[in-house]
Amino acid sequence: MGRVVQKYGGSSVADADSIKRVAKRIVATKQDGHEVVVVISAMGDTTDELMDLALRVSPQPAPRELDMLLTTGERMSAALLAMAISDLGATARSFTGSQAGVITTGTHGNAKIIDITPGRIKSALDGGDIVIVAGFQGVAQDTKDITTLGRGASDTTAVALAAALDADYCEIYTDVDGVYTADPRIVPGARRIPNISYEEMLEMAACGAKILHLRCVEYARRERVPVHVRSSFSYMPGTWVKDLEEGTRMEQAIISGVAHDRSEAKVTIVGVPDRIGEAARIFEAVAATEINIDMIVQNVSAISTSRTDISFTLPKTDGKTAVAALNALKDDVGFEDVLYDDQIGKVSVVGVGMRSHPGVTAKFFSALAEAAVNIEMISTSEIRISVVVDENDVDRAVRAAHTAFGLDSTEEAVVYAGTGR
Amino acid sequence: MGRVVQKYGGSSVADADSIKRVAKRIVATKQDGHEVVVVISAMGDTTDELMDLALRVSPQPAPRELDMLLTTGERMSAALLAMAISDLGATARSFTGSQAGVITTGTHGNAKIIDITPGRIKSALDGGDIVIVAGFQGVAQDTKDITTLGRGASDTTAVALAAALDADYCEIYTDVDGVYTADPRIVPGARRIPNISYEEMLEMAACGAKILHLRCVEYARRERVPVHVRSSFSYMPGTWVKDLEEGTRMEQAIISGVAHDRSEAKVTIVGVPDRIGEAARIFEAVAATEINIDMIVQNVSAISTSRTDISFTLPKTDGKTAVAALNALKDDVGFEDVLYDDQIGKVSVVGVGMRSHPGVTAKFFSALAEAAVNIEMISTSEIRISVVVDENDVDRAVRAAHTAFGLDSTEEAVVYAGTGR
Repeated sequence: MGRVVQKYGGSSVADADSIKRVAKRIVATKQDGHEVVVVISAMGDTTDELMDLALRVSPQPAPRELDMLLTTGERMSAALLAMAISDLGATARSFTGSQAGVITTGTHGNAKIIDITPGRIKSALDGGDIVIVAGFQGVAQDTKDITTLGRGASDTTAVALAAALDADYCEIYTDVDGVYTADPRIVPGARRIPNISYEEMLEMAACGAKILHLRCVEYARRERVPVHVRSSFSYMPGTWVKDLEEGTRMEQAIISGVAHDRSEAKVTIVGVPDRIGEAARIFEAVAATEINIDMIVQNVSAISTSRTDISFTLPKTDGKTAVAALNALKDDVGFEDVLYDDQIGKVSVVGVGMRSHPGVTAKFFSALAEAAVNIEMISTSEIRISVVVDENDVDRAVRAAHTAFGLDSTEEAVVYAGTGR
Repeated sequence: MGRVVQKYGGSSVADADSIKRVAKRIVATKQDGHEVVVVISAMGDTTDELMDLALRVSPQPAPRELDMLLTTGERMSAALLAMAISDLGATARSFTGSQAGVITTGTHGNAKIIDITPGRIKSALDGGDIVIVAGFQGVAQDTKDITTLGRGASDTTAVALAAALDADYCEIYTDVDGVYTADPRIVPGARRIPNISYEEMLEMAACGAKILHLRCVEYARRERVPVHVRSSFSYMPGTWVKDLEEGTRMEQAIISGVAHDRSEAKVTIVGVPDRIGEAARIFEAVAATEINIDMIVQNVSAISTSRTDISFTLPKTDGKTAVAALNALKDDVGFEDVLYDDQIGKVSVVGVGMRSHPGVTAKFFSALAEAAVNIEMISTSEIRISVVVDENDVDRAVRAAHTAFGLDSTEEAVVYAGTGR
C-alpha cells in the first residue's frame, strides 16, 4: 500500500504485445493497493526513426523543432499504454511532460528539470486513475516551449516525479535484472547487487555502468528516493539504490563492483612550460569547446627542463574538437606536442568499504600487475579507484579485480539483513 | 501585403521532399511581404498508421487516449516543416493546437472549436516568425485534455485561425486545383469554378463535394473569411469561396455545379399508422442512436388504409444500427415493415441563380427523364434540388444535369469581372 512511480524503457514497449504485457504488470501493481504513476519511453527505435526523418528534412534540425518532433514518440507510447490499461478494466490517463508539470530550463535537447508541479497527476490519482506520463520531456519555464531532457532521461523524469509526489519508491524497469558486480559478458561469475548506496551507484554510473543515468542517480540521492532497478521480463527483485544503514548490514564487501568504460580517449600535452597559469589556459581552451573532460593527471615536472606533461581523458566523440582547440594554442603556450590515444579503457573499483579498509589500492594494483596489465593513469575518490589501461587489457583487468576482491561466486556474496523492502 | 493563413493537407507533406517543397512555397509567401500562419495535416498515411497501431493494442481505444495518440501526427509534420523553413533562412516556430490557443469542447474524436486565443501566434508573428500550427487538434476548455476535431478538420482549424487573427484570407492547399462544376472523373467537360458563394459551397459540400469540409465552410461563412481552395502542385489560381456581390458578376449561371454522393442508403418504413405523433416517435428512436439523417420524405396517406410510408436517407455506415432501432419499435408503433436499400445515389444541382430563374426543377427533371433516370426521392432548398436515384443511374444523371444547365465547355463558362484576388 502506498504510492509507486514505475518507469518502462523503450525495449519494454517495443510493440503492441509488449505494451499489453506492461499494462498487465501495471494493473497488478494497482490491484495490490498502490497508487501508480508510470513514466514511459518511446517504443523501441521510434526516437532514432524520428531523428532520421528530421535529418532527411534538414541537415541541422532547429533544436526547438527537434524537441517538438522527438517528444511525440513518448506521447504515442503513453497513449497506447493507457488504452491497453483501459482494456484491462482499470482507468488510466496519459499526460505529456507539460501536462504533468515537468518544468525545465530552455536548453532544447538537453534541458534540466527545474520544478515539478504535479497538480493534474494528483487529481488523477485522487480519482483512482493510473497515471501515465510521457518521459524525456518537459516545458520550458520561460518560453512555454516543449523541451527534451536529453536521451535516456526518462529515468530522471521518473525519479523527479517520485520525489515531487512523495512516492514510497521508484521502480526502473529495463531489459536486465539489476546492477551487477561487473559486466556479466566479461565476468561470468558476476553477481547481481541486491542493495547499493546512492554514492556507490553514482560512481558506478560515472565509471561506465550504463544501467542508470548519472543525472537520475544524482536526483535520487539529493531527494533520497529509493530506486529499484529491475527487469520488465521477470518478477525477480533487482537492485535497490537507497540509503544503506550500517546496522542493516550483516557483511560489508570492501568493493561493491567493478565498472569499465571504453568510450573515452586520452589526450596528452607534452612539454608544457611549468609556469603558473599554463594548465589553466589549456583547460580554459578545452572548456570553451563545451567538452566534458574526466580524469586529469599532471606529471611531476622534470627539474632539468622545467617542463611537464598533462594528460586527460574525454569522450572519444569529442576527441577531434579538443585536439584542434589545443593545437591552436600550441605556439601561444609553447608546449611541444599534443598526443591522442583512443585505444584505451577505464577500469574502476567502487565501494564504500574502502573508507574503512586500508590497502585497497595496493590490492587492486597488485592484481593488475599479476594479470600483466600496465597502468597508464590513476584517479581516485573516497570510494573509487580508477585506472586507464590499454583497450586490449580492459577485460583482463576487470576479471582480475573482480577475483581479487572476492566478488566471484555462484551465489550473492553481499548479503543484507533485508533484501530491499 | 497582409496576413495569410495557409493550410496544407497530408498529400502535400507526404515525405521529406514534399515538406521541403511546401517550405519553399511558404517562404516565398513571406518574402512577398505577408505575415504567414500555416496549418498542417499529418504526413500522408500517418493518421491511418497510428489508428492501426491503436487497434493492435486495443479493440476499442479509449477516446481520450486516441486523441493523445493521433495528434502526434500533425505535431511531427509541423516540427519537420519548421525545420525545413529554418534551412531556407526564414524563422519558423511550430505550435500544437493547445499552444496555438485552439480551445474546444471535450468531445474526444469530434470536438468543436469554442474559441481561439492566439496570443502566442501573434507574439511570434510580431517577432517576424512564420507560424506553423498542428491542425486537427485543440485543448478541451474544461479538462485541458488534448482533443481532435474529427478527421479532415484541419481545414476548419485554418479558417478559425484566419478569423481569430483577422487574416485577409485563408488558402486551402490540396491535391486538386479547385472546386469543379461536377466530378471531372464523371463529366470530362467539367470546369473549375473560379468563384463561389459560401451558400453554394455549403450546399455542394453537404451534397457530396468532398473538397471542403462542411464545418469549415460553415465557419468561413459565419466569420466571412474568404477561402481560396487551390493545388499545392501548381501556382494556378483555384476556387475562391467568398461573398459574391451582384455587381461584380458579368454573367450568372443558373446552376453553379452538380454534386453527387454515393455514401448514403435509404430506409423506408412501410404502413405507418397516420396518427399525430407517430412520425415523431420513429425519428426520436433514430435520433437516440445519434445517427444523422439527411432527406426525409413522407408519402400522402392512402385514404383507404389511413397508413403512410416514410423514407429517409442516412450514411450507409449507420444503416444496420438504424434498422435495428426501428425494428425494436415495430410492434409498439404498429407499422408494417422496414425496407433498407443501399444501392442508391444522390444527385444535386446547386446555384443561387435558381432564386431568380423559375423552371429549374422542370428543366432538371426533364433532363433526368430524357436520360431514362427514375427519381426515387426529392428534396429541395432555396438554392438546391436533390434527387435520390438508383446507384447505377448516378453518372448518367450527373452528366444529363451538367449538360442541361449549360455547364459543359472547354473553357470556363462562369466569368466574373474579377477572378478572385
